[in-house]
Amino acid sequence: MIYFDNSATTKMSEGALARLNEVALYHFGNPSSLHKVGLDAEKLLSASREVIAKSLGIQRMSRGEIIFTSGGTESNNIAILGSAFAKKRRGNEKILATMGEHASVEAPLNYLESLGYTVLRVPTKGGALDFDFIRQNSSGVILATFMHVNNETGALYDVKTAFEIVKENSPEAILHTDCVQSYLKVKFTKKSLGADLISISGHKVNGPKGIGALYISPEIIKQKKLSPLFLGGGQEAGLRSGTENLYSACAFAKAVEEHLASFSQNEEMATLREYIASGLEKIEGVRVNRPAVCAPHIVNVTVKGIRSETLLHFLSSKDIYVSSGSACASNAQKKKSIALLGFGLSDDDIDSSIRISLCKDNTKDEADALFSAIKEATEKLVRR
Amino acid sequence: MIYFDNSATTKMSEGALARLNEVALYHFGNPSSLHKVGLDAEKLLSASREVIAKSLGIQRMSRGEIIFTSGGTESNNIAILGSAFAKKRRGNEKILATMGEHASVEAPLNYLESLGYTVLRVPTKGGALDFDFIRQNSSGVILATFMHVNNETGALYDVKTAFEIVKENSPEAILHTDCVQSYLKVKFTKKSLGADLISISGHKVNGPKGIGALYISPEIIKQKKLSPLFLGGGQEAGLRSGTENLYSACAFAKAVEEHLASFSQNEEMATLREYIASGLEKIEGVRVNRPAVCAPHIVNVTVKGIRSETLLHFLSSKDIYVSSGSACASNAQKKKSIALLGFGLSDDDIDSSIRISLCKDNTKDEADALFSAIKEATEKLVRR
Repeated sequence: MIYFDNSATTKMSEGALARLNEVALYHFGNPSSLHKVGLDAEKLLSASREVIAKSLGIQRMSRGEIIFTSGGTESNNIAILGSAFAKKRRGNEKILATMGEHASVEAPLNYLESLGYTVLRVPTKGGALDFDFIRQNSSGVILATFMHVNNETGALYDVKTAFEIVKENSPEAILHTDCVQSYLKVKFTKKSLGADLISISGHKVNGPKGIGALYISPEIIKQKKLSPLFLGGGQEAGLRSGTENLYSACAFAKAVEEHLASFSQNEEMATLREYIASGLEKIEGVRVNRPAVCAPHIVNVTVKGIRSETLLHFLSSKDIYVSSGSACASNAQKKKSIALLGFGLSDDDIDSSIRISLCKDNTKDEADALFSAIKEATEKLVRR
Repeated sequence: MIYFDNSATTKMSEGALARLNEVALYHFGNPSSLHKVGLDAEKLLSASREVIAKSLGIQRMSRGEIIFTSGGTESNNIAILGSAFAKKRRGNEKILATMGEHASVEAPLNYLESLGYTVLRVPTKGGALDFDFIRQNSSGVILATFMHVNNETGALYDVKTAFEIVKENSPEAILHTDCVQSYLKVKFTKKSLGADLISISGHKVNGPKGIGALYISPEIIKQKKLSPLFLGGGQEAGLRSGTENLYSACAFAKAVEEHLASFSQNEEMATLREYIASGLEKIEGVRVNRPAVCAPHIVNVTVKGIRSETLLHFLSSKDIYVSSGSACASNAQKKKSIALLGFGLSDDDIDSSIRISLCKDNTKDEADALFSAIKEATEKLVRR
């Protein structure tokens, strides 16, 4: 199997799975139980939380600064809906987002629009944020939510500068960044991003599915600027009730530790990405959609004249797995990529684009096999 | 270790953990991916969903009838907040619940009260629902949420009759039951309960933490009577977005299959429960709070003159684990048990009550060890 769809989901690492087993076998308590078994579970949960905190450059974590969630979608929703709902309505509140946010950001934004909030989408021409647009629209903003790496194009956005511009004119604005695609691929800390809220996910970084986290700045906690989406026993500093997903939290932390220990391998991944991009560019009819600055693991290519789903199935039949657009929307909800519009692609070309996304285990040999397969596809499948 | 806190959380079964490993190793795809790896994942997810459906007596599952959630808390919140928010406000809507619902029901109800909804709590004297109260208050009800088994006392409520009474006067009312404590302990189907919505949880039935499910009647789906709490890719019939927790869903299903195959063992558990109840009653100063009808796995006892936390720690030091009240609330949120008020206990007695909760692995020897320890506690710890 040649798996080039690591931005959709990754395989859990051996270490993470081993950790999950160990905790499930020997530390199965409810972290809220007051007895020894519960306290033992709570200790493991805290230690996992510390690992996530450290990975975001937090040395001394305060209460609520890292909360575990069920994944990136929930983290994004708490960030967006939670910060909107915590604020008393004045009517016509303004929110900024990039064009082409992930569905788990776009959908809550659409919902807020239906409630009367104004959501402005920042153009991302060539895969870069339009700072002028932000500057012109940065007054009266209550929330700015800018993804760090676009999940379809791999564009790495300079969210720090964008946030600074917003902050100048709207010092009260809450700044959120969806870092699901950039986490542990691109170096950053809470400080280097200048964000109040950061969403991350376990299964994109060789951790389990069904676990994610949200960084929440102590200021937001102190000023109660975030409302929970569901309520109950008050776990996760009251922001995310429910018995904690202990096994997955521990496995997530293990995966994070492994990534941190081998962070330099991301450079090799970037080298492979470039090898793939330039290799594909040599094939007639293939265009690589190169963003201004690119994350090390995503290549988006247009294969002219072949619908992306056709190509995806052709490659799948050869045991090569890529993605057409984002895989994070259920099958029923495929929509045209907005991020690719920023690269000047026609509708037809957008319909003919696929995403190749890497993990550390991918090799040049696999890339070569991909080249052959796509070459074959252009010879056999192109509608002429 | 003698673990008598299975209503707080259970250990994952060997079979469930093995299943989780198998899926994590060989079927790690994103169920929303369109290629073979994704379709393979989707198939496993569907098969797991079928298992849950069958366990609730559903032979032909329709879309959205079983949705996976992150656990019982989320299921309860979708049921309660989701059905309240899907309905246009008229002002002063009435909701019925039992006295002593779990925090994950009480907290969303409290929130709805803060928004102006009227929530009436049905008395549960002696551990039985007060049908007269329900009859007198059953008009204009938009939602009735009655737990099936009380998590603290083990009282098994006749929710079917209660729902029928509500339905007579409020045919439009949505009927929800929190079955987190009764699931796979007490025999029921969606039909035998007469509910529109049923919440269940994985980690209470030897499945993983971080996974649960909600049964939603096809009628509710068809009439769009339920709103999602968070939004994104539209997974789980649009009611619960986010990459599906595949490994845990499969492990949950495996645990359910195991329970179904050995359901008769619940009778042995009921026998052990009775052995424990009558054994404890022989100890001076111990009172067993026996509900009218009891689930097979919970014994609630008052040990006069010893605060429950003191007793819990005393037992914990002897490697015996029980609970003081519900463990599902975070440590900061311990509240006085309302369910125990229905047993005529004074505040002092409520403060001196513990819950012993069983799984199939518990033995008479363990019960005998518990008797000795509690006897010793009454001799050493009682404030006289």
